[in-house]
Amino acid sequence: MTFGILLFPGVEELDFVGPWEMAAMWSAYADGPKELITVAQTKGTLRCAKGLGVIADYDFEDCPQLDYLLVPGGFSVFDELGNEPLIKFVQRAAESAKHVLSVCSGAFILHKAGVLDGKNATTHWKAHEQFSALPNVNLVSERWVRDGNTWTSAGVSAGIDMTLAFIAEIAGEDAASIVQMNSEYYPDAKIYGKAHKDLLHVDYIKKLDGEM
Amino acid sequence: MTFGILLFPGVEELDFVGPWEMAAMWSAYADGPKELITVAQTKGTLRCAKGLGVIADYDFEDCPQLDYLLVPGGFSVFDELGNEPLIKFVQRAAESAKHVLSVCSGAFILHKAGVLDGKNATTHWKAHEQFSALPNVNLVSERWVRDGNTWTSAGVSAGIDMTLAFIAEIAGEDAASIVQMNSEYYPDAKIYGKAHKDLLHVDYIKKLDGEM
Repeated sequence: MTFGILLFPGVEELDFVGPWEMAAMWSAYADGPKELITVAQTKGTLRCAKGLGVIADYDFEDCPQLDYLLVPGGFSVFDELGNEPLIKFVQRAAESAKHVLSVCSGAFILHKAGVLDGKNATTHWKAHEQFSALPNVNLVSERWVRDGNTWTSAGVSAGIDMTLAFIAEIAGEDAASIVQMNSEYYPDAKIYGKAHKDLLHVDYIKKLDGEM
Repeated sequence: MTFGILLFPGVEELDFVGPWEMAAMWSAYADGPKELITVAQTKGTLRCAKGLGVIADYDFEDCPQLDYLLVPGGFSVFDELGNEPLIKFVQRAAESAKHVLSVCSGAFILHKAGVLDGKNATTHWKAHEQFSALPNVNLVSERWVRDGNTWTSAGVSAGIDMTLAFIAEIAGEDAASIVQMNSEYYPDAKIYGKAHKDLLHVDYIKKLDGEM
């Protein structure tokens, strides 16, 4: 099995490194995918949204067939929507993949590639209005949403929660348990201050707030 | 202000990208450090623990003075403990830094550099026994531990929680609130399966388990 993560200039760092770490722990400790790879239009170094330099090991020509494709987000997604080779790569890779996942604004790339047609999906709260205006997709404002073999998550850090849920589904609760233990992902879930009060139109955040 | 993250071959990906993203959101939205940089013994590409290629932008010679130094972990930390130039860099950088932070086994590097002398600190649960055997430092098995101007966290993902707490302390609760909102860090905090039952000697995990 091969788990591939799409990279592009301006990709948000934690959007893809959160899921990368979860998938890698799955491989290392719970019989997860043999290969975990990065792919971009051009191989080699690219700069992420916040300036971190990372390496894409494959390009659209030499990328092996992916069993799982994950598309992260970042503001630069909105430039990439006009990048035909990238959208075509996602279409092609998604067609042969068993499951397709996105984090944050990565959902816009999946939508552009036709992967979300008629489906429920989510994205970063900042992009909810813009996502709601898209044709042929239904925004569900949960932390992550599964619809058949597509999985979409809310912003940035939410990809970690989605990937753990994905592993639990694909490989079983025990595998997710081992991944969580090795990555020591037992967050304290503290909510700081009141900024989240501006986000009570987001269903899952409203629920969290109700529990406080 | 400059926030610097130490990299080395085999560094664990999420150990440093979690705090990187939180610090970057602090800079972008809440008047955080002007510069967020990576530094390693040799500039350029290095491979992380799970194979991701990343770029270190500074080396030990040209690294600017750091106000905040963060040392991530990974199994390769135990090789780096014998790397004299790296330990000396950490000593030098920590001396002039206002705060020094570590994630996971990064605490062993801080200890080797003398930064944890007589202090309370924590590390990944896997390394608790080994850490307890170190002279002149006291293991406290919380998710993160502050002792004066040193901050240490538990494994991998715990660096996110520590960095948010650090921002709340340095810049105030409102700054942490804005960082949390922009990174959409409202984890669902679900515990999968029973692996964590093997970790009930870790105080904060025991508490979590009691709340379930």
